[in-house]
Amino acid sequence: MTIPRFITVEGIEGAGKTSCMDLLERRIRERGHQVLVTREPGGTPMGEDLRQLLLGHRHDGMADDTELLLMFAARAEHLHAKIEPALAGGSWVLCDRFTDATYAYQGYGRGIDLQRIATLETWVQGKRRPDLTLLLDLPVEVGLERAGRRSTPDRFESQALAFFERVRRGYLGLAAASPGRFRVVDAGQSLDKVSQQVTAAIDAFLDQADSR
Amino acid sequence: MTIPRFITVEGIEGAGKTSCMDLLERRIRERGHQVLVTREPGGTPMGEDLRQLLLGHRHDGMADDTELLLMFAARAEHLHAKIEPALAGGSWVLCDRFTDATYAYQGYGRGIDLQRIATLETWVQGKRRPDLTLLLDLPVEVGLERAGRRSTPDRFESQALAFFERVRRGYLGLAAASPGRFRVVDAGQSLDKVSQQVTAAIDAFLDQADSR
Repeated sequence: MTIPRFITVEGIEGAGKTSCMDLLERRIRERGHQVLVTREPGGTPMGEDLRQLLLGHRHDGMADDTELLLMFAARAEHLHAKIEPALAGGSWVLCDRFTDATYAYQGYGRGIDLQRIATLETWVQGKRRPDLTLLLDLPVEVGLERAGRRSTPDRFESQALAFFERVRRGYLGLAAASPGRFRVVDAGQSLDKVSQQVTAAIDAFLDQADSR
Repeated sequence: MTIPRFITVEGIEGAGKTSCMDLLERRIRERGHQVLVTREPGGTPMGEDLRQLLLGHRHDGMADDTELLLMFAARAEHLHAKIEPALAGGSWVLCDRFTDATYAYQGYGRGIDLQRIATLETWVQGKRRPDLTLLLDLPVEVGLERAGRRSTPDRFESQALAFFERVRRGYLGLAAASPGRFRVVDAGQSLDKVSQQVTAAIDAFLDQADSR
C-alpha cells in the first residue's frame, strides 16, 4: 500500500479552491486511494464552532493574538481528532487551507510575528507538514470580484484590498521558499485551463507516490 | 490617585470564590476605587463563547493543546478589550481566575509543559501580571462536595479526584514561588473565618496601595 499523503489547497478568496478540491478528490479516488476531505478552520465539531467565531461578524475587532490562537486551537483539534487518525488508518487527507493560510493571513496579512506562528506550528503539528500544496494564485481584484458575487463577505473577505495583496505576496513567498512541496497554479485563467494545470500537478504527484 | 491594581482570586471548585469576590469588591469600593469585576475564561463576548466551548460537555475529549490555546485566546481578548483599557482608565480590576489557573489546571492538572504556558503568558500578557492573588485553599474532597451540591458538574468538575489533587498542589507551588503576590487563605474553615482572613488580606493590601 502507498503511504497515505497529506495534500492542502491554498489561495485567496475567489481563487477556485472548491472546484480544485473536487477535482483533486476525484483523481485521488480514481487511483484507488481512500481520501478524507476536510477544511480549516473547521473539520471537527470544535473546529466548526471556532470557524463561526472566526469568520462571523459577531466578533469584529478581535485581537490579532486571539485570532492566531483560535486558528491553532482549531488546528490542534483537527490534527488530534481527524487528520492524524485518518493518515494512521491509511487514508489520504485533502484539506482546504492549512498552516500556510495562517502564515499568509495572520502573518503577512495581519503582521503577526512569523516566528510566533512557527513556534505554534511545531507545538501543534510536531513534524507533520503537507506533502503537497496547490496554491491557486490570481490577482486580488479578480478573486474578490468572484467571491463577492457568491455571498455576503465574511470577516476576512471584509478586509481592505491591501490586506489581500499582502496575503497573496505572502503565499507566493511561502511557495518560493518550499518549491518541493508547492505547485503554483495560475487561477486567473479560464476554468478549463485551471483544471488542466491542477490535473497535471496531481497526476504527476500520484504517479510518483504510487511508484514508491 | 492610586495606581489601579489588578487582583485575582484562584482556587479549586467549591473553594468559595464567589463570596470572596463579592467581599473584595465591596472593600475596594469602600475605599473609593472604581473596580471592574470579571472572570476567566470569559469577560468578553468572545471569552464567554469560548467559556461555553471549554466548560460544556459538547467537546468532551478535546485535545490538551486545544484547551490550552483556547484559554489563551480568551485571555488575549480579555486583556485587549477589557482589562488593559480598564486599568488604563484608572479602574481596579478584580478577576475570578487568571493565568495561575492555566498553570494549575492545564499545566499541573493535564500535564502540559509549563514552559509552553510561560511562553504564551509572555506573548499574550507582555509584562502584565496580577498585583495580588488570593488563593482559596481547601481539601479537594471538601471543595468538590460543596461544588457538587450546587449544580451539574461541568467538563472540569467531571475530572477525577487525582486531577484536582494535582491542581491543588500546583496552586500551592505557585503561591510558594511568589509569596509577594499570593495570599493563601484556608478556605476549609467556616464562612465567617474565611471572610475574616480575606478581609485582613485585602485591607492590608489596600492600606499599602493607598499610602503610595
